[in-house]
Amino acid sequence: MQFTSEKRLDDVLEREFTLGEIPGILWTPGSSSARTPLILLGHPGGLHRMYPRLADRARRTVAAGFAAATIELPWSGERPGSTAADQARADLHRVLHTGEPVTDDIVDRLVLPLVDQSVPEWRAVLDVLLALPEIDGPVGYSGGLISVGVRFAVVEPRIAAAVLFAGSYVPRTIFEQAREVTIPLHVLLQWDDEGNDRQQALDLFDAFASKEKTLHANMGGHTGVPPFAGEEGNRFFARHLK
Amino acid sequence: MQFTSEKRLDDVLEREFTLGEIPGILWTPGSSSARTPLILLGHPGGLHRMYPRLADRARRTVAAGFAAATIELPWSGERPGSTAADQARADLHRVLHTGEPVTDDIVDRLVLPLVDQSVPEWRAVLDVLLALPEIDGPVGYSGGLISVGVRFAVVEPRIAAAVLFAGSYVPRTIFEQAREVTIPLHVLLQWDDEGNDRQQALDLFDAFASKEKTLHANMGGHTGVPPFAGEEGNRFFARHLK
Repeated sequence: MQFTSEKRLDDVLEREFTLGEIPGILWTPGSSSARTPLILLGHPGGLHRMYPRLADRARRTVAAGFAAATIELPWSGERPGSTAADQARADLHRVLHTGEPVTDDIVDRLVLPLVDQSVPEWRAVLDVLLALPEIDGPVGYSGGLISVGVRFAVVEPRIAAAVLFAGSYVPRTIFEQAREVTIPLHVLLQWDDEGNDRQQALDLFDAFASKEKTLHANMGGHTGVPPFAGEEGNRFFARHLK
Repeated sequence: MQFTSEKRLDDVLEREFTLGEIPGILWTPGSSSARTPLILLGHPGGLHRMYPRLADRARRTVAAGFAAATIELPWSGERPGSTAADQARADLHRVLHTGEPVTDDIVDRLVLPLVDQSVPEWRAVLDVLLALPEIDGPVGYSGGLISVGVRFAVVEPRIAAAVLFAGSYVPRTIFEQAREVTIPLHVLLQWDDEGNDRQQALDLFDAFASKEKTLHANMGGHTGVPPFAGEEGNRFFARHLK
C-alpha cells in the first residue's frame, strides 16, 4: 500500500492510498495514538462523486472512536472499465426507461461480477490496513452495496458487525447467502426510496440468520438518511466492536 | 388529584395518585427543581402486573431528563370491570384457541370502547399533571396500546411526539385515523412478535401522515424489546421535546 496524499480535516487525518490498481482513502483520529477498531465504508462506486458523503460519514465515524476506510469499486471512477459491466448497466437503464421488468439476468450480470471482484479486493485491503500500527480489529462494514456487504459478511470472519443500507437488485444467490449471515446487523431502509423495492428489502432483512438484527426505517428518498440514523449506526458499532 | 403514596427509587421520586376512580403513578427527578417535559407511559392494562416493566421504563425516562406518568386502563386491574369487555376478551380467546379468524367485530368490541373511554381519561390526567409546578410541556406518549396512542395523537394537540409499540388488533376506524397523525413518530416493532401480525404493523406505519416517522424493528418476541431500543426512543423524545 502506498499513501499518495495526506490532509487534516479538523481532528481527522485523511490519507489517500493505492493498493495495486485500487485507490482508497483512510481516515484516522488526528490526535490519538490509541489503536482503534476499523469501519469499512461501502458505497455504490465513484469515489470522487461520492467523496462529500463519504468524508461526512468518515468524520462521524472517527468522532465515534473508529478509523474509517473505503476503496473504489471495480470498473468505477478512475479504474479501468468493463464492457460486460457497461452492457449490464445499459440494459438496466433501457428496461427502467421502457418500463419493462428488471429481469434476474440483468441483476445477476449487474451485481454478481461486482461482488465477485470487490470482496476479495476488500479483503486484501483489510489485510494491509490491519497491519498498520494505528488500526486494530474488530472490523465493521458499513454501507452499500448491500450485496457486497452480504457476501463480505459471509466469507470474511474478521467482519464482526455490519450496518447495511437496504437496496434492491439483490441477485438470488446473494439472497440465499443472506441466510448464512450470523453477525449482528443494523439495516437502514429509506421507506420511500425511489430506486429500491421496499418489500424486497424487508424480505432480505427477514432472511438474515443473525440473532441480533435491527431494521431502522426512515422517511425520505435514497439519499435522505437523517443524521440521527447515522449516529444510531455508530452506537450499534460501539456496542459490538468495543 | 390525590397523591396516595410516595417513595424514592435511587434518584427518582415515585408517587401513586388517584384522579376520581383512576389510579396512576407519577415519576419525577428526585433531586432537580427544574420543570421537565412529560412522557405518558401507555401499557396494555393491569398496573400491578405491569409495574416492574413500567417502573423500569420510568427510571430510564427520568434518567433521560423527563417526568413520566401512567394510569390504569378502564376495566383493568383494580378498576370496575365491564361485561362487554369481558365478553370481547372471551370471544378473542375462544377464536385464538380454535384457530378461527379474529373478526373485525371482535377487534372493534375489544379495542374501540377502550380507546373511547381511556383517551378522555388520559386527557383529564394530563390537565392535572401539567398544572403541577414540576411538570412542563411539551408532552410525549410512549407505548401501547397503539390504538390508544393513535387516537390520542389525533385528538390531543399537547402530544408533540410519540413512541408507539406496534401491535395488531387495530380497528379499521383507528387505521383510518392513523392517516391523520402528523406528529413525529418512533415506532417499535418486535419482528417475531408471537401475538401480532407483522404485515399489519408495517401497513399501519405506512399509513401515518407524519413527515418524520421512524420504524425500529428488533428481534425477539413481544416482551423482548432490547434496552438499547428504549434508549433510542428517549433520544427521539429529546430531539422533539427539548
